[in-house]
Amino acid sequence: MTDLLDRLARRLGPRGFTADRDAMAPWLVDWRGRMRGRAAALVSPADRDEVAFVVAAAAAAGVPVVPQGGNTSMVAGATADDPDALILSLRRMNAVRRVSPEDNMLVAEAGTILHDVHVAAEAAGRRFPLSLAAKGSATVGGLVSTNAGGTQVLRFGPMRALVLGIEAVLPDGGLFEGLSALRKDNRGYDLRQLLAGAEGTLGVITAAALRLVPAAGSRTVAWVGLATAQDALVLLRQLEGATGDAIESFEIVPADALELVLRHIPGTRAPLARGHRWHVLIEAVAPKGAPPVPLDEAILATGLAEDAVIATSEAQADALWRLRESISEAERIDGMAAKHDIAVPVSAMPGFMAEARAAVEARFAGVRVIAFGHLGDGNVHFNVRAPAGADDRAWFAQQGAVVSAFVHDLVTAAGGTLSAEHGIGRLKRAEFARLADPARLAAMRAIKNALDPGGIMNPGVLVPLAEAPSLS
Amino acid sequence: MTDLLDRLARRLGPRGFTADRDAMAPWLVDWRGRMRGRAAALVSPADRDEVAFVVAAAAAAGVPVVPQGGNTSMVAGATADDPDALILSLRRMNAVRRVSPEDNMLVAEAGTILHDVHVAAEAAGRRFPLSLAAKGSATVGGLVSTNAGGTQVLRFGPMRALVLGIEAVLPDGGLFEGLSALRKDNRGYDLRQLLAGAEGTLGVITAAALRLVPAAGSRTVAWVGLATAQDALVLLRQLEGATGDAIESFEIVPADALELVLRHIPGTRAPLARGHRWHVLIEAVAPKGAPPVPLDEAILATGLAEDAVIATSEAQADALWRLRESISEAERIDGMAAKHDIAVPVSAMPGFMAEARAAVEARFAGVRVIAFGHLGDGNVHFNVRAPAGADDRAWFAQQGAVVSAFVHDLVTAAGGTLSAEHGIGRLKRAEFARLADPARLAAMRAIKNALDPGGIMNPGVLVPLAEAPSLS
Repeated sequence: MTDLLDRLARRLGPRGFTADRDAMAPWLVDWRGRMRGRAAALVSPADRDEVAFVVAAAAAAGVPVVPQGGNTSMVAGATADDPDALILSLRRMNAVRRVSPEDNMLVAEAGTILHDVHVAAEAAGRRFPLSLAAKGSATVGGLVSTNAGGTQVLRFGPMRALVLGIEAVLPDGGLFEGLSALRKDNRGYDLRQLLAGAEGTLGVITAAALRLVPAAGSRTVAWVGLATAQDALVLLRQLEGATGDAIESFEIVPADALELVLRHIPGTRAPLARGHRWHVLIEAVAPKGAPPVPLDEAILATGLAEDAVIATSEAQADALWRLRESISEAERIDGMAAKHDIAVPVSAMPGFMAEARAAVEARFAGVRVIAFGHLGDGNVHFNVRAPAGADDRAWFAQQGAVVSAFVHDLVTAAGGTLSAEHGIGRLKRAEFARLADPARLAAMRAIKNALDPGGIMNPGVLVPLAEAPSLS
Repeated sequence: MTDLLDRLARRLGPRGFTADRDAMAPWLVDWRGRMRGRAAALVSPADRDEVAFVVAAAAAAGVPVVPQGGNTSMVAGATADDPDALILSLRRMNAVRRVSPEDNMLVAEAGTILHDVHVAAEAAGRRFPLSLAAKGSATVGGLVSTNAGGTQVLRFGPMRALVLGIEAVLPDGGLFEGLSALRKDNRGYDLRQLLAGAEGTLGVITAAALRLVPAAGSRTVAWVGLATAQDALVLLRQLEGATGDAIESFEIVPADALELVLRHIPGTRAPLARGHRWHVLIEAVAPKGAPPVPLDEAILATGLAEDAVIATSEAQADALWRLRESISEAERIDGMAAKHDIAVPVSAMPGFMAEARAAVEARFAGVRVIAFGHLGDGNVHFNVRAPAGADDRAWFAQQGAVVSAFVHDLVTAAGGTLSAEHGIGRLKRAEFARLADPARLAAMRAIKNALDPGGIMNPGVLVPLAEAPSLS
């Protein structure tokens, strides 16, 4: 081990290698502060050749490698947990190598933060259409490795749909050069799609070619009051029919979530005169140079809205978005919650929200469910609050895992997933192993063992191996 | 072997099993008539349980299984070539199990022909946006397994982008149930994307959940005369900027391809008054209820067109499309050609068409290159005609492989692919092995061996194994 660390220190130099405890400390704690990890060193290669050197050396020594980008995982997917592990930070590799407006594509190194991708795309008269709250920290490598989502998935899809090419160092140290970003390429197994969402367990992504779309023209933002969640879904489908692909966001907010925001977030106010059981926030985007999307007429024509308001300025649009984006903060101020990042088929979500809420509140006396988010993707944040008057921390320490297992069972019975956009990481691995169907698990294990026979890539994350019977 | 066939005959019954040579004959010849295969029996299961029975029995006996849908492969990807092989036809499994307009999704069994998918989607007020010439024969299982393309890929992507879920029998006979068609699902390796494009080498797809899009409103079809291929690409990007995602087809036709059509196809006539070196056929689609896309104004505003015509009726639109769709037939009437289904990055295609044409015509005296097709996807049909006066058959027997290797070398040097939409199959496997980078091949072999250790699934197709050094 000492020999390995010496070799790495020599090759990577002082900017690329540290085994200092204080220097490593920030990168050993996960984003949500749930876990404090362990590692032998933090290596920060300057280029893909140095990444290949690190991985090959680690493979030869049988030492774990934990790739890390912005360290913004919600499921501790980038937290090392082995005293011999190497944290492989991609943060020094943050160049946008190439922007090609004619190909509607740019190539960014793994350590490029999302915000810089947005800026580079805009400078070329294009747009990169995925965004999320952590855009100032989250990096391209992590976004691809976790197939990140966000509030704009409805029209252009999650990260997986926006990846045109990948360059990666495989677990044997070999370089996979898949950056060519062809629009059509039918040469067998799509290794790019296999690496996307693999959470660093099959190799280290060093760069990605990302899809750009035409620059946006004006956006139209609406806030609509509705009687039922089912009405929200019908509204979405009718608006899609009426406006083509113009609807980019369609977020559902129940009355209790809006109340929390209005109570806890300064400067917010109710957008509609009366109360409604359900609200949706809608954003439609017109092409550049085209007139704004006539969202008001389209909403009126459905006859579904109890009331609606269209933002008449960017400031008003931002204020409506702030209501949606402040829900998590308002919840946090209000108290602890067990959070679940779940999805079911879109058509089943309105019913699921009502039935699962009732089932949870019946099973755990006094708890409250607040579910909100990406209705158009069939993906909501399903948060369970402790009973009023209970000591939040003590209650969740005792009941948290039971509550989550109950929620995951309901989701699984509805044909859904316990991870819609955050991934599995370390925190959900046991639940994934408990709930996944055997054929899926066996195939994942077989692929993992085939590409990483030494098991050095991000061990303990995503793939439940310990409990594994082998495929054959 | 006799024992295996007896067991299969008993389980599948007379509709599901035959070893009769005459009955098997049509399914032993590939679509282009290039290859006559061999097999022990043709099995046609009625449901997924029977598929699982066949695969498990074949796995136990070590007998090859060749999945077959419409048998329309352009690369002999569904042709059995082993006297012991079982042709596994999915044609009896042709039910559309479910159409869910609210989920923008339908579930079709593997043997459903593409035309029936179109009909089912339309009946539900939706649209399945992929189409191709063989839509009356090609089946869902084959379309997914080969990641099929076509003329409408520009906006909605190839088959891979339209697959929301897959149900498949894996090589050990286990059932992978991945039909739930969640819009967001981050549970690790995407086995659906691994099976899509795998050409039946990793299992048998028994059903797929397919993405639907809103029903189309009016289409606007234009034919534009241009001075250069580069102008065509600039035109495409400007129209995309001006019309959002409305452009669904953008096909390039050089003067010589149009001349062939006008000469050989009865009832065709030149759409523009004068001759132009390049033409593009453009189709833009408006949402239902929306006004037609103002394609004429948008084209005029670019200042790039030498001349242009907009179809003013469906009959005129069909006539313009007929010019494009008749090129292959016109070529066939005119004489033999070595055909290449290639792609390079979109921005490189105008230059590649000129330079590769010049290189081929310089290297092989007297040949003529005709390249046309999906410019917006960076994918053209690059066809090389024998020298005038030569005996076509004799010339291609002697020079065909040399010509194709030369073309593939040019494509590879340009960062492109020797298979844009047809796949590898049997016909391109040797060229794929020659040109693929070692890391890609090693990873593909490792995955193939991991999921199909007995090598029973469609052996000889796609994955070059014989020449393989192992990964580790």
